[in-house]
Formats: sequence, structure tokens, C-alpha cells
Amino acid sequence: MGLADVLRDVVGPAHVLDDPDTTAPFERDWTGRFGGRAALVVRPADTAQVAAVVAACARAGAAIVPQGGNTGLVGGGVPRGGEVVVSLVRLNAIGAVDPALGVVEVGAGATLAALQQTARAAGFDAGLDFGARDSCTIGGAVACDAGGARALSHGTARTRVAGLEAVLADGTVVTRMAGLAKDNAGYDLPALLVGSEGTLGIVTRVLWRLEPRFDARVAALVPVASADAAAALLTALRAEAPTLESCDFFLDDGLELVLRYQRRASPIEPRAPFYVLAECAGRSDPTDELAAALERAGIEEALIADDTPGRDGLWALRELHPDAINAVAVPHKLDVGVPLAALGRFLDAVPRVLAEAAPDVPDARAILFGHLGDGNVHVNLLGPSPDDERADDAVLELVLASGGTISAEHGVGVAKARWLERARGAGEVAALRALKRALDPDGILNPGAVLPSPGLR
Amino acid sequence: MGLADVLRDVVGPAHVLDDPDTTAPFERDWTGRFGGRAALVVRPADTAQVAAVVAACARAGAAIVPQGGNTGLVGGGVPRGGEVVVSLVRLNAIGAVDPALGVVEVGAGATLAALQQTARAAGFDAGLDFGARDSCTIGGAVACDAGGARALSHGTARTRVAGLEAVLADGTVVTRMAGLAKDNAGYDLPALLVGSEGTLGIVTRVLWRLEPRFDARVAALVPVASADAAAALLTALRAEAPTLESCDFFLDDGLELVLRYQRRASPIEPRAPFYVLAECAGRSDPTDELAAALERAGIEEALIADDTPGRDGLWALRELHPDAINAVAVPHKLDVGVPLAALGRFLDAVPRVLAEAAPDVPDARAILFGHLGDGNVHVNLLGPSPDDERADDAVLELVLASGGTISAEHGVGVAKARWLERARGAGEVAALRALKRALDPDGILNPGAVLPSPGLR
Ligand SMILES: Cc1cc2nc3c(=O)[nH]c(=O)nc-3n(C[C@H](O)[C@H](O)[C@H](O)COP(=O)(O)OP(=O)(O)OC[C@H]3O[C@@H](n4cnc5c(N)ncnc54)[C@H](O)[C@@H]3O)c2cc1C
Ligand SMILES: Cc1cc2nc3c(=O)[nH]c(=O)nc-3n(C[C@H](O)[C@H](O)[C@H](O)COP(=O)(O)OP(=O)(O)OC[C@H]3O[C@@H](n4cnc5c(N)ncnc54)[C@H](O)[C@@H]3O)c2cc1C
Repeated sequence: MGLADVLRDVVGPAHVLDDPDTTAPFERDWTGRFGGRAALVVRPADTAQVAAVVAACARAGAAIVPQGGNTGLVGGGVPRGGEVVVSLVRLNAIGAVDPALGVVEVGAGATLAALQQTARAAGFDAGLDFGARDSCTIGGAVACDAGGARALSHGTARTRVAGLEAVLADGTVVTRMAGLAKDNAGYDLPALLVGSEGTLGIVTRVLWRLEPRFDARVAALVPVASADAAAALLTALRAEAPTLESCDFFLDDGLELVLRYQRRASPIEPRAPFYVLAECAGRSDPTDELAAALERAGIEEALIADDTPGRDGLWALRELHPDAINAVAVPHKLDVGVPLAALGRFLDAVPRVLAEAAPDVPDARAILFGHLGDGNVHVNLLGPSPDDERADDAVLELVLASGGTISAEHGVGVAKARWLERARGAGEVAALRALKRALDPDGILNPGAVLPSPGLR
Repeated sequence: MGLADVLRDVVGPAHVLDDPDTTAPFERDWTGRFGGRAALVVRPADTAQVAAVVAACARAGAAIVPQGGNTGLVGGGVPRGGEVVVSLVRLNAIGAVDPALGVVEVGAGATLAALQQTARAAGFDAGLDFGARDSCTIGGAVACDAGGARALSHGTARTRVAGLEAVLADGTVVTRMAGLAKDNAGYDLPALLVGSEGTLGIVTRVLWRLEPRFDARVAALVPVASADAAAALLTALRAEAPTLESCDFFLDDGLELVLRYQRRASPIEPRAPFYVLAECAGRSDPTDELAAALERAGIEEALIADDTPGRDGLWALRELHPDAINAVAVPHKLDVGVPLAALGRFLDAVPRVLAEAAPDVPDARAILFGHLGDGNVHVNLLGPSPDDERADDAVLELVLASGGTISAEHGVGVAKARWLERARGAGEVAALRALKRALDPDGILNPGAVLPSPGLR
């Protein structure tokens, strides 16, 4: 019996796809930059089926690409060519919120939006939010250690993980779902699986730590003159507004792209080089606190929104950046982080570095936006052809020279795998490779993601 | 040249001890239950020396036991016989607090008390506190993922780690000290090292995440009738007192031991079977909030302390439990965790389980205390001889039957290594063993701790 038939026995014939028409949506990523043909797409319904699928693939020596909502931005969730895609979207159960402990059990395939709705209905907040909320899955968010705007106050997906269940490369199921606040019996395997991008295990369930729900909210869009002014404003807000939940930024050329994509006029005039988008949230109305903090920071002009439509409108300006950019061309996307002290200098240097690296691409430009409070910059390069990575390399060199990280929140995937050793050093990457070999000796799980396949330059 | 001479070259002759008189303090643990002879005790002064020491030991095939303040309670920090003890206490530098990011760089050998003092002086709180604060080191706290009373609100040591530097088993130095809020470039090696008890790497430096300092504090000692009443009070306090920072408990027989150890009269009359010790902390005085919460919970009697000496006095009743117990006899110490819903039943069951397991030890008794809010119980067994582990086994079986963990905050060490497979299952322990082999193929680092040496029953 071939692998396809074995898998049909496990998940039922309707959930093993091999017709190119049906597999196509699983084979190309959201950016359009990454993808390849899958041998098969398998859609297990529960943990036991995931374990059986993995065990069958392991026996057959078939490589697996785990996939959630396919919103990842580094090409780690789509086949490179010939792998079995294991889609987790059918593991989408969400349990009842435990109000005493503030946790809820979530299947890996549930969307972030569905979890947010469950949390809100129970008087809690999911503690994680970003633009891909309607499609991205909890398993994908945990596998990538996703961040987003609220990471400033609530941490990344890692912070949300109060318990985890996962299937290892040999089909072993590891279950740590008791929700014990302290549990030091043996190494923290869940902590290693978070952020391992489907290369060390497949997340099947998560015990998700919720936050209190704060319904009193206010957002402010603040035009500022420079990257340094933006950084100074952040410092002031941190000090003066304890209810600060998120603090993002974008630049005027990005705003222009979004406004054209939205076909609307600018809500803010006169325009400025930089914009800071800050939101405060609390039990009681944080408007006065934010206004006072802005005043003490010397800010004279800002768009303040204290109702939901108004806030959504301001956040759309930030969150539609990826879509607006994609509407222009397929960008090179680099999600990087730099220490706050180096942020202003980094942002100012990107255009220069870009011009130097690709002088023969005169229309090359970088759209910069991201999470100011985390020093987390999304560098979107427009202009260079898909295979021309000179500018990417130059920006990543600049990141390392600034003491930063080549991946803040999107992960390494296949997009940055060849950069890992430069970023972490040979000694540390040798240790990471040893961990990979320990948990996946045959290299079944997501080969080529995170750690470059030996032989790749 | 022998290993001792190589090490003398690295750290200087004064810091390689081989005379039994000078090595003795490093060879027996705080409880007096664990220890053995060390081949040598080495005291490196900085990261480079630690790396050179480890590399030399690796070349010589000499096993290493990393040691901090030697306050660990599971025998993981003292030699079993013939190892090289690497004492980290000379790596005790504490940097300047970064007020913008709320972090501070700390050497692994700095004591928790020294860090707390630095934090307080800069307007912050270390976010971690427990009775061993004056001797235990930051490296030891991170290696054990130490918890303590404030873990309820601030998490365990894991939560404090904003960056980490460590030496791996081959002498490789891994440095992740940039303090980036988001950094997903490769597996989270620091997250795996936290709680690995010196078996996967030696922590040399930590970038420590501070908490805001709350000087307005109030503590309440509440006598209650039963374990269930204590659990109900906790639930009420969680719901009604958002400033709740810690919530510990002890029993009347433990209080009696402490009062005798202190040679003082009881501050609370009439006595009760159970006591809950809760502390609230905030920017503004939380006394009214706590009093109202107690009233709504139906509590009619409580000792309230709103000044520092008063609070210290109440906490001494809880924190002197280990010393008061040690003054009576060498106890068997079991630090376990059970889900809150099972806590009352667990506490009530321990004496019965003990009587059944050791019927021929009629004076056997269990002193129970711990961190109520985390379901974290310190079971101290008095009566059974040092080698008689029948009662230990029975209590740990009860823990597992309650859905709990055999180690909440003290770790596994050598004391519980033979229990690990029973607790985690063969499949997961195989994965943990693979991780150990990956990072320490020759088994140099703390052999026999966490994972039982093959061959041990
Ligand atoms: C418009 C837009 C905005 C975004 N904004 C943010 C943001 O603000 N912050 C941020 O961090 N990210 C952001 N992202 C990136 C992405 O949405 C997140 O990283 C998300 O976590 C990916 O989830 P997914 O279910 O779509 O994963 P996929 O894309 O399906 O997979 C991503 C990676 O995780 C692995 N994986 C997926 N599911 C599992 C599983 N169950 N077990 C093991 N491995 C698994 C895959 O193999 C792959 O390596 C954004 C993406 C888009 C398109
Ligand atoms: C009175 C008393 C009260 C206590 N209360 C609590 C409590 O409330 N909560 C709690 O969690 N613990 C508590 N403990 C246990 C203990 O203090 C903590 O676990 C502490 O973290 C140990 O620190 P240490 O420096 O003394 O480590 P040690 O005892 O020296 O070592 C402990 C373990 O960590 C390893 N280790 C030490 N330093 C390093 C390093 N730099 N790198 C790698 N590995 C290292 C050792 O090999 C050993 O396995 C208490 C202990 C005592 C004596």
C-alpha cells in the first residue's frame, strides 16, 4: 500500500488531496514569493490522526510541511517541492474559558479571530492580535512565536502558552496541558517547540493564557518629524502612560500606498515623514492619561480616536500596509528587530544602504513600518527582482551591525535560513542543529526551514 | 599536565581547591541529605574562564557539577562523588539598571538579595523573592527556574530572563544579551536552558527583567478551618483583590515548629488548622482593597500588617518553615504542584497516604506548606530514615493521580530523577534524553541530575 492509501485509511479519503486543482491553495504562500508542488495534502481531524499521519510519513521517509492558515511570511509553511503538506485547520475546537485560571484550550487549527471572539465573550482578551487574525491559526502563531502590536504589553505568543500538546517526528505525542503554574519536572520541551516553525514537532493543542479584557480604549495617530522623534515619543509614552498597550509606526510613503489602496483621502494634514500609532487600554477611560502624556511629550497635533470605528480606521492605516504593498508588486519582506537605542539610526540608514546595494535598480525603495515599542521593523523592499537578494543582504548586515536580529517575529522559514549562521555564529548554530537532529534524526519535519539544508549556500 | 594544573593556569592557583577542609562546604547540600566528595572545586572569575574550565574538563573527560549558592533542595548542585565542582559565585557583577527598558545585567554568581537591592535602589523590584535570597544565586535561580511566593503575580525565574549567556558542554559560549523584545532567529536555546539544572549548559550572565516597585503593601494572616476553605479564600482574593501579589499557606503543626524555633508565643489565637498568608502590593495603599476582599469572602478574623516589620514578622512564620523543620531532623523534601481544583483533596489525603505507606514508622508526619496560588505544596516528611523512600513514592503517586507535577519549583535534581519517566512518560523522556545527548554527548554536565543515569533503578 502506498503512502497516500495509508493516509486515506487514517484521515478518510476526502482529506487526502492529490489533484493539483485542490492542492494549489496549499502550495503557494501569502506573499506569492514562496511555494512548490506538494506530493499530497493531508487534513487530519485530531491529535491521534496527526500522530498516525506523522508516523506513516516517517516510515515512508516522506518529508512533511505543517501548515496552518498559510499566512506566514517567510515561506516556511508551503512545500519546496514534493513534501506532504499536513494541514491543521480541522483541529479547530475551542473549549470553554476557565474563568478562575484565565485559560482556554484551543485546537492548533482554530483561527486567532475565533479565539479572540471566545475570549471576549467570556470577559477576557486573547492577548495577541495582528492583521492576519482571520486566517492565521493558533498553531501557526505558536510555531512562529507570533508577536504583533500588543506584544509590547502582553508579550509574544510564547507568553500565551500555559500548556501545549505536540506530535514529535516519530509520532510520539507530548502532552503538557494540566495548566500548572509551576512545573519543573524535566526540560521545558514546550518552550523549545514555541518558535520552532514546524521543524521540531507539530503543535496540536494549546492551553492559552488570556488577559483581562479592557474595553476602555483610545488610539492616537501622531505625525512626527523623524525616526528619532518617534523613538523619543515612545520613551515618553512608556514613562507617562502605564496603560500603553501598543505603539506602532509607519512612514509617509507607506501611508500614501495605503490611502491609494483604500481609495481615500488622507485623514491627516499636513503630512509628516513619520507617524506613531499608539493605543492605551484600561478598565477606566485612558483618554486623559494619553492626552496628558502626549502634551508632556510636546506633541501639538494628533488624531485621537476613542470609539471603535475611529480606532479601527486608524489601525487600518497601519494594518493594510502588507496588502497595499502586495497590490503594487511582490516585495522582499524582512522582519527585523533592533535595540531601541539604535532604531532611529537604523531607519534613517535603510534607504542609503538600499541605494548602495542595488545602484542598478534606480526605482528600488523600502517601505518601513512595524512595532516601534519592540524595535521591530518590517522592511518591505520594492524594485529588486525576486532573485536579486543584494538589498536584502545589505539590510540584514545593517541589522547585525546595529546589534539586532534578522528575525523579530516572523521567524526564519526558508527565506532567512541561509542567514542564520551569520546571525547566531557557528557555535550556536551547531547547537541548534544538534537539537534538530535529536528530535528529528531523519529530517522529516519541514526540511530546509530555519536551518538551511546542508548543501545550500 | 594534570587537569588540576590546567585549571590552575586558567583561574589562578588560589581558585582551584583540592584540600578536603576547603572543599567541604561545596560537597554537602543545604538539607544535609545529599553530597559526595569533589575531585576539585574551581572558581572561575568570568565567562571566558568558565568556558576554558569547561573545555579543559571536556578534554579530560571530567564530569562537572555547576554550583551557585548551594541552596538547591534536590541535590543537583553537589557532587555525587569525584566530579569537578564549578562554583559560579565569583561571577557576581551587577550592572546599572536600564530604566527605559526595565532590565539589568547580572552575573550568574550574584545573590538574589544583591539584585533585589540594586533593583530597589533604581525604583524597581526584582520580581522574584524567596527565603534563600541571601545565599542563592541568579544563575542557580535561572537553572532551577525558581519560583517563590511572588510567582503568583510575576511568574517564575523564566519570566525574568530577557537575555542569557551560557557556556555549553564543549566550551562554546552562547550570548543572547541584546535584550530584544522579539527575537525569533532560530530555536530559543535560552528557554531550554532555563530550568535545565546545569545539565545542558552553565549560565554565566542574565539580562534580568525587572518589575515596577510597589511600596504600598499590606499582608494578612488568615486562620481558616480546612484546605478547602483556604482554596476558596484564594479564589475570592483573586477575584476581588487585583493587587494580590502572593498567597502562601501553612498548617498549624508547621506554625508550632516555627514558634518553637523562634522561641516565641503565637501571634494568633485561637489557633486554626490552616493559615493563609496573602500580600497585596500597589502604587497606592491596598489595605482597604484587601480588607474589603476578606470581608466579602466571609473572613471575620485575620492579622493585618501594613508596615514592614509587621509584614516581615508574618512572612517569617512561613519562611522559617525549612529551618524549623531542619532543626528537628533531616526531612525528606518533596516540592510538588497540583491543579488548584485538586488542592484541597490532595492536602487532606497526604497524612493518610503517609500512614499507609510507612505503617511501621508510627511517628512519621508530613509538614505541609507552600504557595497556595500556584497549587505548589512543599511536602516535608519527618520520621522515615534517609533511605526509606516508601512515603516519598506514595506522595508522588498521589500527586500524579491528582494530575499534578512531581516538581513544581525546586527541580528534579538527583532526588527525583528516578521519578521522571513515571511522571512524563517514556516517549517524552526519550525526547528529553535526546536533547541532553545533543547538547552534551559525553555526559560531562551534571551527570545523574534530572535524567537518571542509565543503570540507576
Ligand atoms: C497581513 C498579515 C499580517 C501579519 N502580521 C503579523 C504580525 O503583526 N506579527 C507576526 O508575528 N506575524 C504576522 N504575520 C505573519 C503570520 O500571520 C503569523 O506569523 C502567523 O503566526 C502564521 O500563522 P499561520 O497559521 O498562517 O501559519 P502558516 O503560515 O500556515 O505556517 C507558518 C509556519 O508555522 C508552521 N506551522 C503552522 N502550523 C503549525 C502547527 N500546528 N505546528 C507546527 N508548525 C506549524 C509552518 O510549518 C510554518 O513554518 C502577518 C501575516 C499577514 C499575512
Ligand atoms: C530556605 C530556602 C528556601 C527556598 N525557597 C524556595 C522557593 O520559595 N522557591 C524556589 O523555587 N526555590 C526555593 N529554594 C530552593 C533554592 O534556593 C532555589 O532553587 C535556588 O534557585 C537555588 O540557587 P543556588 O544558587 O543556591 O543554586 P545551587 O543550589 O547552587 O544549584 C541548584 C541547581 O542549579 C545548578 N546551577 C547552579 N548555578 C548554575 C549556573 N550558573 N548555571 C547552570 N546551572 C547552575 C546546580 O548544578 C544545581 O543543579 C529555597 C531554598 C532554601 C534553602
